[in-house]
Amino acid sequence: VSTPAQKDEIQMKDARGTTVPLDVLSSVPDHHRPDLAHFRTGLSKPDDLEKKHVKDDGTMGQYSLPHPIWTEEEVNKVVITHTPPQSFTDKLAYGSVKFMRWNFDLFSGFKYGKRTERKWLQRIIFLETVAGVPGMVAAMTRHLHSLRRLKRDYGWIHTLLEEAENERMHLMTALQLRNPSALFRWCVVFAQGTFVTLFSAAYLVSPRFCHRFVGYLEEEAVKTYTKCLEDFDSGRLPLWSDMEAPPLAKRYWSLPHDAMMRDVILAIRADEAHHRLVNHTLSDLDKDDPNPFQPGK
Amino acid sequence: VSTPAQKDEIQMKDARGTTVPLDVLSSVPDHHRPDLAHFRTGLSKPDDLEKKHVKDDGTMGQYSLPHPIWTEEEVNKVVITHTPPQSFTDKLAYGSVKFMRWNFDLFSGFKYGKRTERKWLQRIIFLETVAGVPGMVAAMTRHLHSLRRLKRDYGWIHTLLEEAENERMHLMTALQLRNPSALFRWCVVFAQGTFVTLFSAAYLVSPRFCHRFVGYLEEEAVKTYTKCLEDFDSGRLPLWSDMEAPPLAKRYWSLPHDAMMRDVILAIRADEAHHRLVNHTLSDLDKDDPNPFQPGK
Ligand SMILES: [Fe+2]
Ligand SMILES: [Fe+2]
Ligand SMILES: [Fe+2]
Ligand SMILES: [Fe+2]
Repeated sequence: VSTPAQKDEIQMKDARGTTVPLDVLSSVPDHHRPDLAHFRTGLSKPDDLEKKHVKDDGTMGQYSLPHPIWTEEEVNKVVITHTPPQSFTDKLAYGSVKFMRWNFDLFSGFKYGKRTERKWLQRIIFLETVAGVPGMVAAMTRHLHSLRRLKRDYGWIHTLLEEAENERMHLMTALQLRNPSALFRWCVVFAQGTFVTLFSAAYLVSPRFCHRFVGYLEEEAVKTYTKCLEDFDSGRLPLWSDMEAPPLAKRYWSLPHDAMMRDVILAIRADEAHHRLVNHTLSDLDKDDPNPFQPGK
Repeated sequence: VSTPAQKDEIQMKDARGTTVPLDVLSSVPDHHRPDLAHFRTGLSKPDDLEKKHVKDDGTMGQYSLPHPIWTEEEVNKVVITHTPPQSFTDKLAYGSVKFMRWNFDLFSGFKYGKRTERKWLQRIIFLETVAGVPGMVAAMTRHLHSLRRLKRDYGWIHTLLEEAENERMHLMTALQLRNPSALFRWCVVFAQGTFVTLFSAAYLVSPRFCHRFVGYLEEEAVKTYTKCLEDFDSGRLPLWSDMEAPPLAKRYWSLPHDAMMRDVILAIRADEAHHRLVNHTLSDLDKDDPNPFQPGK
């Protein structure tokens, strides 16, 4: 197979005369590493497995969008808050989130039995696959709206993309610790299909409702991660208490070299508190008002 | 109306204790400026007009993603190139672009009569409303794929978003110079509806086809802007020859204070040449290969 750099080298140059450097292409991972054979259970081809397992080769999260880097003081002062619903739209958004949470707690079995690291990971992975949807759907909707209506965006898109990427990084971090089962994966696919459809339709009808909805979702996320931290402190999570933060997490949140799992959960909770503020604020604005949030702020 | 900062101030704080600064919110544009009355022709409410006209208050393109800033030497050495189609997929992509271009040239009437600034703006505005679609659709598809399949992205999303934003900035720049008619706006809406649907479906089936397709689209874009520069040099565009670059363009491409319209077209052409390289390269890669392009490079 010829690499892009070998093929049509002259034609492929851009204004800068750039061609794709060969040394970057040679970092393409080898899909046949026998040292991962112990992960193969239940999978037919090594290729499938290797591709499904999220392996951090040191490049994950390397080029992230600007996002807040929290201080120790900031992550520790996060509190559970609630913005009381005022309009009918607010109440509908709040009701939807409460309804979803109640059902999820019931059907995921999270309420029953002992909460372990395994159970926490199941919950976090599932919720973060959903949490990454709204920012991207909203960004795409506003981008296409700007193109279609020949109007400016008023600076919202970068904040929405920052949120989407941040939630996906929460997911990638959790996936450093667990490789979910086939059944779980099907639930994720089903949940995304449903949620992308409903949220996209809702965003076309009422961005105000959608941002309020996400604001309330993030209120719940702060509650969830606060409970997780309480489980750390009451000794319910012995495996995580001694566990170092995954390298991806240290890189993404600029954590110190000796950062632990608890620091990761603290950083994630601070992110969720930030999204809570962002989305409640965006819901208060008209869609042609300028976004008051700067990148990474 | 209470502002977000007044309402529930305590509840709205995030980890950093941020509330939305009031001075930012007060920069929301006044939707009732009588000095824009001369733009009102054919529109019922001043609000409509004011919202449709893309007014740069100095904040447009303020927070753009990293993107290449071209030197004078770079923009001048851009050439028309062609990557010969090799596979069946390549040929299909090339044929689709050729077919679209032929039809567009015919039905837009661009082939007939004198090419003026007005005609160029019509063409550029229309094409850029389409050009902004692929990057965003591809980014969203890969983002959702990563969430749904619990896999990493391999660093493609930032390049795709950079392209989408860059094309939207081409559009916003052209919109500084012209406020299109109602009929034109309907054509744009129709074109987006069709193109978003087809391109999204195609991206799910074959990202390789889609990036090759965009590669060929960008080959045509470089041809188009090269012809525009030839029209400058042969004296066909007297209005633009003496026109300064719009402030948005100077800001976005970091152009010198005395930059002219011709410099803007040169920068746009260099962007298109860059997208040509990027998309032909991405089409050569497998979707789990790392993206060799760094942000803004
Ligand atoms: Fe999250
Ligand atoms: Fe969240
Ligand atoms: Fe363009
Ligand atoms: Fe383009």
